[in-house]
Amino acid sequence: MKEKTKSSKKVYECSFMELYEDQVILSNKKISERVYVKHPGAAAILPITTDHKIILVKQYRYPIGMENLEVPAGKKDDLNEDSLLCAKRELEEETGHITSEMIFINRIYPCVGYSNEYIDLFIAKNCVKIDHPKAMDEDENIETFFYTIDEVKMLLKTNQINDGKTLLLLQHYLLDELK
Amino acid sequence: MKEKTKSSKKVYECSFMELYEDQVILSNKKISERVYVKHPGAAAILPITTDHKIILVKQYRYPIGMENLEVPAGKKDDLNEDSLLCAKRELEEETGHITSEMIFINRIYPCVGYSNEYIDLFIAKNCVKIDHPKAMDEDENIETFFYTIDEVKMLLKTNQINDGKTLLLLQHYLLDELK
Repeated sequence: MKEKTKSSKKVYECSFMELYEDQVILSNKKISERVYVKHPGAAAILPITTDHKIILVKQYRYPIGMENLEVPAGKKDDLNEDSLLCAKRELEEETGHITSEMIFINRIYPCVGYSNEYIDLFIAKNCVKIDHPKAMDEDENIETFFYTIDEVKMLLKTNQINDGKTLLLLQHYLLDELK
Repeated sequence: MKEKTKSSKKVYECSFMELYEDQVILSNKKISERVYVKHPGAAAILPITTDHKIILVKQYRYPIGMENLEVPAGKKDDLNEDSLLCAKRELEEETGHITSEMIFINRIYPCVGYSNEYIDLFIAKNCVKIDHPKAMDEDENIETFFYTIDEVKMLLKTNQINDGKTLLLLQHYLLDELK
Protein backbone atom coordinates (compact mmCIF):
# COMPACT_ATOMS: atom_id res chain seq x y z
CA MET A 1 0.00 0.00 0.00
CA LYS A 2 2.98 2.32 0.52
CA GLU A 3 3.44 5.12 -2.01
CA LYS A 4 7.06 5.58 -3.04
CA THR A 5 8.55 9.02 -3.65
CA LYS A 6 9.74 9.42 -7.26
CA SER A 7 10.64 13.10 -6.95
CA SER A 8 10.03 15.90 -4.47
CA LYS A 9 9.94 19.63 -5.11
CA LYS A 10 9.49 22.50 -2.64
CA VAL A 11 7.12 24.96 -4.32
CA TYR A 12 6.55 27.47 -1.48
CA GLU A 13 7.66 28.28 2.03
CA CYS A 14 6.75 30.75 4.75
CA SER A 15 7.38 31.21 8.48
CA PHE A 16 5.28 28.21 9.62
CA MET A 17 5.32 25.71 6.76
CA GLU A 18 6.75 24.46 3.48
CA LEU A 19 4.66 23.28 0.53
CA TYR A 20 5.80 20.27 -1.52
CA GLU A 21 4.77 18.81 -4.86
CA ASP A 22 5.88 15.15 -5.02
CA GLN A 23 5.61 12.58 -7.78
CA VAL A 24 4.77 9.19 -6.23
CA ILE A 25 4.59 5.59 -7.45
CA LEU A 26 1.34 3.96 -6.29
CA SER A 27 1.02 0.27 -5.34
CA ASN A 28 -0.50 -0.39 -8.80
CA LYS A 29 2.74 1.09 -10.33
CA LYS A 30 0.93 4.16 -11.68
CA ILE A 31 2.39 7.61 -11.14
CA SER A 32 0.43 10.23 -9.24
CA GLU A 33 1.06 13.62 -7.65
CA ARG A 34 0.82 14.54 -3.96
CA VAL A 35 0.79 18.17 -2.85
CA TYR A 36 1.17 18.69 0.89
CA VAL A 37 2.25 21.01 3.68
CA LYS A 38 5.24 20.24 5.92
CA HIS A 39 4.46 21.65 9.36
CA PRO A 40 6.51 21.56 12.59
CA GLY A 41 3.63 20.13 14.68
CA ALA A 42 1.56 21.73 17.40
CA ALA A 43 0.11 21.30 20.87
CA ALA A 44 -3.43 21.99 22.11
CA ILE A 45 -4.45 22.12 25.76
CA LEU A 46 -7.76 21.81 27.61
CA PRO A 47 -7.20 23.89 30.77
CA ILE A 48 -9.23 23.11 33.90
CA THR A 49 -8.87 25.54 36.80
CA THR A 50 -8.62 24.57 40.48
CA ASP A 51 -12.32 25.49 40.80
CA HIS A 52 -13.26 23.17 37.90
CA LYS A 53 -13.83 25.80 35.23
CA ILE A 54 -12.83 25.11 31.62
CA ILE A 55 -10.88 27.91 29.92
CA LEU A 56 -11.52 28.62 26.24
CA VAL A 57 -10.06 31.43 24.15
CA LYS A 58 -11.69 33.46 21.41
CA GLN A 59 -9.74 34.87 18.50
CA TYR A 60 -10.34 36.05 14.97
CA ARG A 61 -9.32 33.38 12.45
CA TYR A 62 -8.57 35.03 9.15
CA PRO A 63 -8.80 31.92 6.89
CA ILE A 64 -12.43 31.27 7.95
CA GLY A 65 -13.27 34.98 8.38
CA MET A 66 -14.73 34.80 11.87
CA GLU A 67 -14.07 34.73 15.60
CA ASN A 68 -13.67 31.20 16.90
CA LEU A 69 -13.92 29.68 20.39
CA GLU A 70 -11.01 27.31 20.93
CA VAL A 71 -8.73 25.63 23.41
CA PRO A 72 -5.34 27.35 23.71
CA ALA A 73 -2.95 25.95 21.12
CA GLY A 74 0.09 26.80 19.08
CA LYS A 75 2.71 25.41 16.80
CA LYS A 76 6.09 24.23 17.97
CA ASP A 77 8.89 26.81 17.76
CA ASP A 78 10.91 24.29 15.80
CA LEU A 79 10.82 20.60 14.88
CA ASN A 80 12.84 19.64 17.96
CA GLU A 81 10.79 21.48 20.56
CA ASP A 82 9.20 19.14 23.07
CA SER A 83 5.38 19.14 22.79
CA LEU A 84 5.02 19.43 26.56
CA LEU A 85 7.11 22.62 26.62
CA CYS A 86 5.08 23.98 23.72
CA ALA A 87 1.83 23.16 25.58
CA LYS A 88 3.03 24.90 28.76
CA ARG A 89 4.11 28.01 26.83
CA GLU A 90 0.83 28.32 24.92
CA LEU A 91 -1.23 27.78 28.08
CA GLU A 92 0.65 30.57 29.87
CA GLU A 93 0.71 33.00 26.92
CA GLU A 94 -2.93 32.57 25.88
CA THR A 95 -4.64 32.20 29.28
CA GLY A 96 -2.19 33.57 31.90
CA HIS A 97 -2.47 30.24 33.74
CA ILE A 98 0.07 27.54 34.57
CA THR A 99 -0.05 24.01 35.99
CA SER A 100 2.24 21.19 36.99
CA GLU A 101 -0.40 18.63 35.92
CA MET A 102 -0.20 18.53 32.14
CA ILE A 103 -1.50 15.15 30.96
CA PHE A 104 -0.82 13.87 27.43
CA ILE A 105 -3.92 12.42 25.74
CA ASN A 106 -3.18 11.57 22.11
CA ARG A 107 -1.38 12.69 18.96
CA ILE A 108 -3.87 13.51 16.21
CA TYR A 109 -3.55 14.47 12.55
CA PRO A 110 -6.10 17.18 11.61
CA CYS A 111 -5.53 17.18 7.87
CA VAL A 112 -4.01 13.88 6.60
CA GLY A 113 -4.98 14.59 2.99
CA TYR A 114 -2.62 17.52 2.50
CA SER A 115 -0.57 18.20 5.64
CA ASN A 116 1.83 16.28 7.86
CA GLU A 117 0.77 18.44 10.83
CA TYR A 118 0.15 16.65 14.09
CA ILE A 119 -1.39 18.13 17.22
CA ASP A 120 -0.43 16.70 20.60
CA LEU A 121 -3.49 16.97 22.84
CA PHE A 122 -3.11 17.66 26.57
CA ILE A 123 -5.43 18.18 29.52
CA ALA A 124 -4.06 20.72 32.01
CA LYS A 125 -5.52 20.07 35.46
CA ASN A 126 -5.57 22.41 38.46
CA CYS A 127 -4.52 25.48 36.48
CA VAL A 128 -3.77 28.63 38.49
CA LYS A 129 -3.57 32.24 37.36
CA ILE A 130 -0.19 33.94 37.60
CA ASP A 131 0.57 37.64 37.96
CA HIS A 132 3.04 38.21 35.16
CA PRO A 133 2.55 35.65 32.38
CA LYS A 134 4.70 35.59 29.26
CA ALA A 135 3.29 37.87 26.59
CA MET A 136 1.57 36.36 23.59
CA ASP A 137 2.71 36.84 19.99
CA GLU A 138 2.33 40.44 18.84
CA ASP A 139 -0.18 39.64 16.09
CA GLU A 140 -2.45 37.61 18.38
CA ASN A 141 -5.51 39.16 20.03
CA ILE A 142 -7.13 36.72 22.41
CA GLU A 143 -9.98 36.86 24.94
CA THR A 144 -10.37 34.19 27.64
CA PHE A 145 -13.67 32.70 28.85
CA PHE A 146 -14.42 30.41 31.81
CA TYR A 147 -17.14 27.76 31.54
CA THR A 148 -18.67 25.24 33.90
CA ILE A 149 -18.99 21.68 32.63
CA ASP A 150 -22.75 22.18 32.12
CA GLU A 151 -22.10 25.30 30.05
CA VAL A 152 -19.65 23.33 27.91
CA LYS A 153 -22.24 20.59 27.38
CA MET A 154 -24.65 23.27 26.16
CA LEU A 155 -22.01 24.76 23.80
CA LEU A 156 -21.58 21.30 22.26
CA LYS A 157 -25.29 20.55 22.09
CA THR A 158 -25.96 23.78 20.21
CA ASN A 159 -23.02 23.27 17.81
CA GLN A 160 -21.23 26.41 19.01
CA ILE A 161 -17.85 24.67 18.95
CA ASN A 162 -16.62 24.12 15.40
CA ASP A 163 -12.87 23.92 15.83
CA GLY A 164 -11.60 20.36 15.36
CA LYS A 165 -8.95 20.19 18.13
CA THR A 166 -11.28 21.94 20.62
CA LEU A 167 -14.14 19.51 20.00
CA LEU A 168 -11.75 16.55 20.25
CA LEU A 169 -10.53 17.63 23.69
CA LEU A 170 -13.99 18.54 25.02
CA GLN A 171 -15.52 15.25 23.81
CA HIS A 172 -12.61 13.32 25.34
CA TYR A 173 -13.13 15.12 28.65
CA LEU A 174 -16.88 14.45 28.69
CA LEU A 175 -16.39 10.77 27.79
CA ASP A 176 -13.90 10.46 30.64
CA GLU A 177 -16.42 12.04 33.03
CA LEU A 178 -19.15 9.60 31.99
CA LYS A 179 -16.98 6.50 32.48
CA MET B 1 -11.29 41.92 16.48
CA LYS B 2 -11.80 41.51 12.73
CA GLU B 3 -8.70 41.53 10.54
CA LYS B 4 -9.16 43.56 7.36
CA THR B 5 -7.68 42.48 4.04
CA LYS B 6 -5.14 45.01 2.73
CA SER B 7 -4.03 42.93 -0.25
CA SER B 8 -4.43 39.34 -1.40
CA LYS B 9 -2.15 37.33 -3.69
CA LYS B 10 -2.55 33.78 -5.00
CA VAL B 11 0.90 32.17 -4.74
CA TYR B 12 0.09 28.56 -5.73
CA GLU B 13 -2.75 26.39 -6.96
CA CYS B 14 -3.35 22.72 -7.67
CA SER B 15 -6.32 20.40 -8.29
CA PHE B 16 -7.76 20.60 -4.77
CA MET B 17 -6.71 23.99 -3.35
CA GLU B 18 -5.32 27.49 -3.82
CA LEU B 19 -2.69 29.08 -1.56
CA TYR B 20 -2.96 32.78 -0.68
CA GLU B 21 -0.60 35.29 0.89
CA ASP B 22 -2.64 38.20 2.29
CA GLN B 23 -1.57 41.42 3.98
CA VAL B 24 -4.03 42.20 6.80
CA ILE B 25 -4.70 45.13 9.12
CA LEU B 26 -5.03 43.93 12.73
CA SER B 27 -7.38 45.52 15.29
CA ASN B 28 -4.33 47.38 16.75
CA LYS B 29 -3.78 48.89 13.24
CA LYS B 30 -0.55 46.97 12.70
CA ILE B 31 0.04 45.13 9.44
CA SER B 32 0.58 41.39 9.44
CA GLU B 33 0.65 38.56 6.89
CA ARG B 34 -1.69 35.56 6.67
CA VAL B 35 -0.85 32.58 4.49
CA TYR B 36 -3.69 30.12 4.03
CA VAL B 37 -5.23 27.43 1.84
CA LYS B 38 -8.57 27.93 0.07
CA HIS B 39 -10.28 24.53 -0.06
CA PRO B 40 -13.71 23.55 -1.49
CA GLY B 41 -14.83 21.82 1.74
CA ALA B 42 -15.36 18.14 2.49
CA ALA B 43 -17.71 15.60 4.02
CA ALA B 44 -16.91 12.75 6.43
CA ILE B 45 -19.30 9.94 7.29
CA LEU B 46 -19.54 7.45 10.16
CA PRO B 47 -21.27 4.43 8.56
CA ILE B 48 -23.27 2.02 10.77
CA THR B 49 -24.55 -1.14 9.08
CA THR B 50 -27.99 -2.70 9.63
CA ASP B 51 -26.28 -5.22 11.98
CA HIS B 52 -24.71 -2.38 14.04
CA LYS B 53 -21.15 -2.65 12.75
CA ILE B 54 -19.07 0.50 12.25
CA ILE B 55 -17.22 0.70 8.92
CA LEU B 56 -13.74 2.24 8.84
CA VAL B 57 -11.40 2.42 5.87
CA LYS B 58 -7.64 2.08 5.78
CA GLN B 59 -5.49 3.90 3.26
CA TYR B 60 -1.93 5.07 2.85
CA ARG B 61 -1.61 8.78 3.62
CA TYR B 62 1.43 10.15 1.87
CA PRO B 63 1.85 13.39 3.90
CA ILE B 64 2.21 11.44 7.17
CA GLY B 65 3.94 8.44 5.56
CA MET B 66 1.71 5.70 6.94
CA GLU B 67 -1.52 3.76 6.63
CA ASN B 68 -4.34 5.37 8.55
CA LEU B 69 -7.68 4.06 9.83
CA GLU B 70 -10.41 6.59 9.04
CA VAL B 71 -14.07 7.18 8.40
CA PRO B 72 -14.89 7.48 4.68
CA ALA B 73 -14.48 11.09 3.57
CA GLY B 74 -13.71 13.22 0.59
CA LYS B 75 -13.64 16.73 -0.72
CA LYS B 76 -16.50 18.33 -2.59
CA ASP B 77 -16.28 18.13 -6.39
CA ASP B 78 -16.75 21.89 -6.49
CA LEU B 79 -17.72 24.74 -4.18
CA ASN B 80 -21.40 24.39 -5.04
CA GLU B 81 -21.74 20.67 -4.49
CA ASP B 82 -24.15 19.84 -1.67
CA SER B 83 -22.37 18.23 1.31
CA LEU B 84 -25.05 15.54 1.56
CA LEU B 85 -24.46 14.47 -2.05
CA CYS B 86 -20.71 14.47 -1.41
CA ALA B 87 -21.23 12.32 1.71
CA LYS B 88 -23.41 9.81 -0.17
CA ARG B 89 -20.89 9.55 -3.01
CA GLU B 90 -17.90 9.01 -0.72
CA LEU B 91 -19.79 6.42 1.36
CA GLU B 92 -20.66 4.42 -1.76
CA GLU B 93 -17.23 4.75 -3.43
CA GLU B 94 -15.13 3.97 -0.36
CA THR B 95 -17.27 1.30 1.34
CA GLY B 96 -19.69 -0.05 -1.31
CA HIS B 97 -22.57 0.77 1.05
CA ILE B 98 -25.52 3.15 0.74
CA THR B 99 -28.22 4.44 3.08
CA SER B 100 -31.28 6.67 3.07
CA GLU B 101 -30.56 7.72 6.68
CA MET B 102 -27.71 10.22 6.43
CA ILE B 103 -27.84 12.48 9.51
CA PHE B 104 -25.95 15.79 9.63
CA ILE B 105 -24.01 16.31 12.89
CA ASN B 106 -21.87 19.43 12.67
CA ARG B 107 -19.62 21.53 10.44
CA ILE B 108 -16.06 21.55 11.79
CA TYR B 109 -12.87 23.36 10.81
CA PRO B 110 -9.84 21.04 11.08
CA CYS B 111 -7.13 23.63 10.50
CA VAL B 112 -8.29 27.20 11.30
CA GLY B 113 -4.72 28.52 11.47
CA TYR B 114 -3.95 28.09 7.78
CA SER B 115 -6.92 26.68 5.87
CA ASN B 116 -10.55 27.63 5.27
CA GLU B 117 -11.43 23.93 4.88
CA TYR B 118 -14.58 22.76 6.60
CA ILE B 119 -15.72 19.17 7.01
CA ASP B 120 -19.43 18.43 7.28
CA LEU B 121 -19.81 15.44 9.60
CA PHE B 122 -22.57 12.87 9.05
CA ILE B 123 -23.70 9.63 10.66
CA ALA B 124 -25.01 7.12 8.11
CA LYS B 125 -27.43 4.72 9.80
CA ASN B 126 -28.67 1.36 8.51
CA CYS B 127 -26.10 1.12 5.70
CA VAL B 128 -26.52 -1.76 3.25
CA LYS B 129 -24.02 -3.23 0.82
CA ILE B 130 -24.81 -2.89 -2.88
CA ASP B 131 -23.67 -5.10 -5.76
CA HIS B 132 -22.20 -2.57 -8.17
CA PRO B 133 -21.02 0.55 -6.30
CA LYS B 134 -19.49 3.53 -8.08
CA ALA B 135 -15.75 3.07 -8.51
CA MET B 136 -13.41 5.09 -6.33
CA ASP B 137 -10.82 7.53 -7.68
CA GLU B 138 -8.07 5.81 -9.67
CA ASP B 139 -5.29 6.83 -7.31
CA GLU B 140 -7.11 5.64 -4.16
CA ASN B 141 -6.44 2.22 -2.65
CA ILE B 142 -8.77 1.56 0.24
CA GLU B 143 -9.51 -1.44 2.48
CA THR B 144 -12.72 -1.60 4.53
CA PHE B 145 -13.01 -2.97 8.08
CA PHE B 146 -16.09 -3.70 10.21
CA TYR B 147 -16.01 -3.13 13.98
CA THR B 148 -18.41 -3.73 16.86
CA ILE B 149 -18.94 -0.84 19.25
CA ASP B 150 -16.77 -2.62 21.86
CA GLU B 151 -13.96 -2.99 19.34
CA VAL B 152 -14.20 0.73 18.56
CA LYS B 153 -13.99 1.57 22.26
CA MET B 154 -10.80 -0.51 22.44
CA LEU B 155 -9.34 1.27 19.36
CA LEU B 156 -9.91 4.60 21.12
CA LYS B 157 -8.61 3.43 24.49
CA THR B 158 -5.35 2.24 22.91
CA ASN B 159 -4.92 5.45 20.83
CA GLN B 160 -5.15 3.55 17.52
CA ILE B 161 -7.29 6.28 15.96
CA ASN B 162 -5.26 9.41 15.19
CA ASP B 163 -7.24 11.02 12.40
CA GLY B 164 -9.06 14.13 13.58
CA LYS B 165 -12.38 13.78 11.72
CA THR B 166 -12.56 10.05 12.57
CA LEU B 167 -12.05 10.65 16.29
CA LEU B 168 -14.61 13.47 16.23
CA LEU B 169 -17.29 11.20 14.75
CA LEU B 170 -16.49 8.19 16.95
CA GLN B 171 -16.42 10.25 20.15
CA HIS B 172 -19.69 11.94 19.15
CA TYR B 173 -21.27 8.51 18.58
CA LEU B 174 -20.07 7.18 21.95
CA LEU B 175 -21.28 10.31 23.79
CA ASP B 176 -24.68 9.89 22.15
CA GLU B 177 -24.79 6.24 23.24
CA LEU B 178 -24.01 7.17 26.86
CA LYS B 179 -26.74 9.83 27.07
